[in-house]
Amino acid sequence: MKIDGIELRRVAMPLKAPFRTSFGVATSRDVLLVRVVTPDAEGWGECVALPEPRYNAEYVDGAAEVLRRFLIPALGRDLAVFKGHRMAKAALETAVLDARLRASGESLGHFLGAERARVPSGVSVGIMDSIPELLDAVEGYLAEGYVRIKLKIEPGWDVAPVRAVRERFGEDLPLQVDANAAYSLSDAPHLAGLDDFGLLLIEQPLADDDLVQHARLAGRVRTPICLDESIDSAAHAAAAITLGACSIVNIKPGRVGGYLEARRIHDLCRAHGVAVWCGGMMETGIGRAANVALAALPGFTLPGDTSGSSRYFATDLTAPFELADGHLAVPAGPGIGVDPEPDVLSEVTVSTEWIPLT
Amino acid sequence: MKIDGIELRRVAMPLKAPFRTSFGVATSRDVLLVRVVTPDAEGWGECVALPEPRYNAEYVDGAAEVLRRFLIPALGRDLAVFKGHRMAKAALETAVLDARLRASGESLGHFLGAERARVPSGVSVGIMDSIPELLDAVEGYLAEGYVRIKLKIEPGWDVAPVRAVRERFGEDLPLQVDANAAYSLSDAPHLAGLDDFGLLLIEQPLADDDLVQHARLAGRVRTPICLDESIDSAAHAAAAITLGACSIVNIKPGRVGGYLEARRIHDLCRAHGVAVWCGGMMETGIGRAANVALAALPGFTLPGDTSGSSRYFATDLTAPFELADGHLAVPAGPGIGVDPEPDVLSEVTVSTEWIPLT
Amino acid sequence: MKIDGIELRRVAMPLKAPFRTSFGVATSRDVLLVRVVTPDAEGWGECVALPEPRYNAEYVDGAAEVLRRFLIPALGRDLAVFKGHRMAKAALETAVLDARLRASGESLGHFLGAERARVPSGVSVGIMDSIPELLDAVEGYLAEGYVRIKLKIEPGWDVAPVRAVRERFGEDLPLQVDANAAYSLSDAPHLAGLDDFGLLLIEQPLADDDLVQHARLAGRVRTPICLDESIDSAAHAAAAITLGACSIVNIKPGRVGGYLEARRIHDLCRAHGVAVWCGGMMETGIGRAANVALAALPGFTLPGDTSGSSRYFATDLTAPFELADGHLAVPAGPGIGVDPEPDVLSEVTVSTEWIPLT
Amino acid sequence: MKIDGIELRRVAMPLKAPFRTSFGVATSRDVLLVRVVTPDAEGWGECVALPEPRYNAEYVDGAAEVLRRFLIPALGRDLAVFKGHRMAKAALETAVLDARLRASGESLGHFLGAERARVPSGVSVGIMDSIPELLDAVEGYLAEGYVRIKLKIEPGWDVAPVRAVRERFGEDLPLQVDANAAYSLSDAPHLAGLDDFGLLLIEQPLADDDLVQHARLAGRVRTPICLDESIDSAAHAAAAITLGACSIVNIKPGRVGGYLEARRIHDLCRAHGVAVWCGGMMETGIGRAANVALAALPGFTLPGDTSGSSRYFATDLTAPFELADGHLAVPAGPGIGVDPEPDVLSEVTVSTEWIPLT
Repeated sequence: MKIDGIELRRVAMPLKAPFRTSFGVATSRDVLLVRVVTPDAEGWGECVALPEPRYNAEYVDGAAEVLRRFLIPALGRDLAVFKGHRMAKAALETAVLDARLRASGESLGHFLGAERARVPSGVSVGIMDSIPELLDAVEGYLAEGYVRIKLKIEPGWDVAPVRAVRERFGEDLPLQVDANAAYSLSDAPHLAGLDDFGLLLIEQPLADDDLVQHARLAGRVRTPICLDESIDSAAHAAAAITLGACSIVNIKPGRVGGYLEARRIHDLCRAHGVAVWCGGMMETGIGRAANVALAALPGFTLPGDTSGSSRYFATDLTAPFELADGHLAVPAGPGIGVDPEPDVLSEVTVSTEWIPLT
Repeated sequence: MKIDGIELRRVAMPLKAPFRTSFGVATSRDVLLVRVVTPDAEGWGECVALPEPRYNAEYVDGAAEVLRRFLIPALGRDLAVFKGHRMAKAALETAVLDARLRASGESLGHFLGAERARVPSGVSVGIMDSIPELLDAVEGYLAEGYVRIKLKIEPGWDVAPVRAVRERFGEDLPLQVDANAAYSLSDAPHLAGLDDFGLLLIEQPLADDDLVQHARLAGRVRTPICLDESIDSAAHAAAAITLGACSIVNIKPGRVGGYLEARRIHDLCRAHGVAVWCGGMMETGIGRAANVALAALPGFTLPGDTSGSSRYFATDLTAPFELADGHLAVPAGPGIGVDPEPDVLSEVTVSTEWIPLT
Repeated sequence: MKIDGIELRRVAMPLKAPFRTSFGVATSRDVLLVRVVTPDAEGWGECVALPEPRYNAEYVDGAAEVLRRFLIPALGRDLAVFKGHRMAKAALETAVLDARLRASGESLGHFLGAERARVPSGVSVGIMDSIPELLDAVEGYLAEGYVRIKLKIEPGWDVAPVRAVRERFGEDLPLQVDANAAYSLSDAPHLAGLDDFGLLLIEQPLADDDLVQHARLAGRVRTPICLDESIDSAAHAAAAITLGACSIVNIKPGRVGGYLEARRIHDLCRAHGVAVWCGGMMETGIGRAANVALAALPGFTLPGDTSGSSRYFATDLTAPFELADGHLAVPAGPGIGVDPEPDVLSEVTVSTEWIPLT
Repeated sequence: MKIDGIELRRVAMPLKAPFRTSFGVATSRDVLLVRVVTPDAEGWGECVALPEPRYNAEYVDGAAEVLRRFLIPALGRDLAVFKGHRMAKAALETAVLDARLRASGESLGHFLGAERARVPSGVSVGIMDSIPELLDAVEGYLAEGYVRIKLKIEPGWDVAPVRAVRERFGEDLPLQVDANAAYSLSDAPHLAGLDDFGLLLIEQPLADDDLVQHARLAGRVRTPICLDESIDSAAHAAAAITLGACSIVNIKPGRVGGYLEARRIHDLCRAHGVAVWCGGMMETGIGRAANVALAALPGFTLPGDTSGSSRYFATDLTAPFELADGHLAVPAGPGIGVDPEPDVLSEVTVSTEWIPLT
């Protein structure tokens, strides 16, 4: 496929609630968009990297630099010679794929093998200052129709909030927790204290690079272990499953290098009887659209963090994703099926950079 | 310890032999040096990142950016909140440690627990265009006194060069190979073809993030498996040993985030009966000095890639490391024990950047 | 480091409560102190050996004899040629290290890598004549502020006292038990009777030299297994972890040959996700100071038996360690950071022996 | 059994060849004998502890002290409350057992279950200054009739002497090596270099307290692993066998605490199909007699180090053990079946100490 050039566009998406970083409090999500321009179509990709390398080693400015310096010049050759930088690769690959699918008129969902027209929506609830504040937040999300609640936990904020949510909203509420690697294996007895609350899963309790310790933990707690940061590729998923390190995988396409690898992980997990669901990284409608398409594959048997646009943004970059009966509709149009609203895009754009390809 | 400020200095060290990259052929090693200035002493650290993210995800410009943007501003707090970027962290930590040791008059070797005054030198021999060229190169290195030869291998350049070296230089030559992750587990039968050559080890045969497959490979070949890129931390080493993924570890202090973590890996491996040796990343005398100190610890029972300065540079940044009877002397002075030669430093410096700390 | 000579000093520290031995009832703790004298500083080490070889094979007179006959004459050479006698070695090594650190002005905590300024204090409660007596004792310790209770157990005194303490003080009291190798693997069903009491750990249930049976036991009880007497070195810890014989280690620096090996065990356990805590051997302030420094390392995630001086002594040899909000402050001065009070020292000294070194 | 008292007797047995220690060169074997006096009979035990704690933690003066201070006063009660000190315990237990058997007229061999009247004799050959010297020594021993040769090895003296002995004396010579814990697991590839020489076994290659690493080594070399220092009890043997750490055990009764535990180890190994043989510690005729009785049990399927008296002593303390057709006769008289020659005993005695028992 001939590509005329690639645009790197930075947008600052105003957030409904401020977001704390080590620089201070961010009031907007700093997003890197990749736009691929071909003679036949344009394609969009959204880079999920955060402003700082705290979730993993990538950060948004670093991803932009890697794209312009290494990945874009190497387009058409094997990008795997460059180690890591999967979020950058994913943004580029998705934009190229989107352009290709738009040119041929195929939807991303159809291309990936989606089997559903809508997907159930869960929501991720951050660490709060108090239990009552948490209960209010959960109540609000349930009122919006979210069918599953995920609580972020950390040492000092784990058993008590889970107990409070269970006591308030009952045992039937689909509930899970996300530890973002904040614990160590020696916390196993403490984490076993979550066993009585009937959680769907505990996500990424230990360090992202330690499958062996996750496998040991899985033998010491009854709550199913789900891996997120640990799984960067289908090979990682294969290793984790071989070791018994998890029985569930959170697939974030950005983290694993794109939707093709995401589908491979889905296929592998399904073959092994391991459930998957689709996580989120505060994507705009651009990234959200593609995630919803992925989440419609048959192995995605748990609700994802594919929440509505209004979870993070008062105004999304695209037509907003809105919950209907707790679900989001899978876009049916060509490619990712959504387009940025020109006015919004123009308003939030901070910079653009055009890289012509010859 | 009070720090006045930190200098990031980029030097272009002319190479004796050109080095191929995806940009073309490099005739110099692009090095990032970190200089920590305190009221009592200055300390030096060398970042081992290469120009491109092909060995691992780091590259030299990226490391500089992560230092100035995240790590240096966070000095004195927990740098572990930033994921990855261990080469950048190592350069900073080493410079700080060097300054502290110089101030107190203790050598890095003594601080780390070195037990020897000199360390045996091995040499790493790249992939060549022909077997005769390889044999000439090996002959030259042996003439210089190197006590162990390491051959880089890749599919198409493995059994034949090993056989040729064995036939020419005999069975007693300490010989090992380094695959730099170029094979896959399905190559196990082919790699078993190396079993008859009495190799000390095969280094990093498979992908850097797959301990499980290395463990499987270890059951299918007799040559001991050594891990390099796979081991970024003591926790990685612990996992690898638990799985039986290796019986030897190549410790590169830059790769693992510095000399403190390098010592932890050494201690852990020694407790498990796993041999270690010290790899190299084409360091100048600054980085080489520290590596030689590390290699003098008692668990370093195999010769390292701690070769003489002349292996890469006609003129080193410091007084050159020279082989004597196949060994390098461990610097005995305070800190890393060596200083840049002002004239050389000035001549090769490309840029400097001063970051004052308040 | 030049050493002028070494003093072996025996002190009889009056105990608050008498201590039963096979000779009868001891009213004082017979302690061997090692004082290293250098031109620049003096250093102190405390030998934790008990009067009889019942905890392990060492006893205090034997340790003194091994020091004067084998270890002190071999100072500066490899003490590892002498097998065992780790308590004797630890006392000597600590005194030498203390002298060195005092000379350079560095605290032991900083040298070891301590990350906290205070450490939480647990207390070890001996076997009592009756449950009511035990409950009174526990109540007293809790009133003093101890944040964790450890009950010594033995066949006939295990489930009942644990149940009584749980019933009286509730489920949230951090509680653990120490069996001092008093059980055998065939007691596994009985020990599983402790599973319902939410203990932090059971310490050293089986013989000190049987990791294999501890691994089997770990599969038959849910209470986490902690090893004490079994772990004499980092290699022992490595073996125990490999076998799954424990998920927690009690590090007693005296038992493992000193603070350097203690740190190695800490590092190794941390890399494997195994929690550690610092045990005690009725140390005076000399030994207690060093233990508190060690307990401030980041892997010490459970409260230690680092209790206040008043747990054992009406008058400590140094300024007393006193609980503040359930914690002890880590000494910040050079070396171990404390000195014997000359008057107290003189009063309790039973004998001194000066060994000049040339 | 009533015991009137116990004599601790130190003898200095002149050696045929001097023995190097850290104090210098010893020309005599410093032996501690235990004589138990009862109304009906006297019994003898020989303590195998060496002058320094280099083989294990015991040394001869320390053993004497432990006997007089702890063990003898506790006779008749459970000596197991005292940890370690098995060589001291063995000497005492053997003397008591000998007195009892002499009183009842039963031989030790009969008591233990010996099934043979003579046992084959192997010999242990120390590390020599040169290969020719070694070959001469081996030739001499073979001329004396020894049916099996054991070579002491250490790094730098291993493959070459084994190859030389094989080349000179042929492949049919029963040959084994003893490493006395001088290697580490990382030497596995080097030790595999012994695989081609058809050795009966390699004895104690790794540290005495590491069964896990011996098990790993057993998977990397073909020569059968035999354990010596590692096996202090039947429980140790059980653990080693469970782990696959050895397929052969060298039983030294002194090391394991006496002939009763030695028989238990024999029985356990036999049940597991693990061969045993009887090692030596330069015993006089007193200790040798008992060893020969033990070596006549049916599980002792390999020749022991039960060499003739003349291997070490020009004049033995008892009637000398002499090889006949490569075998030693098992004493048939009551108890150990031999008595000290009064004149010799008197001549070599350095001191005696009488401990009356009431």
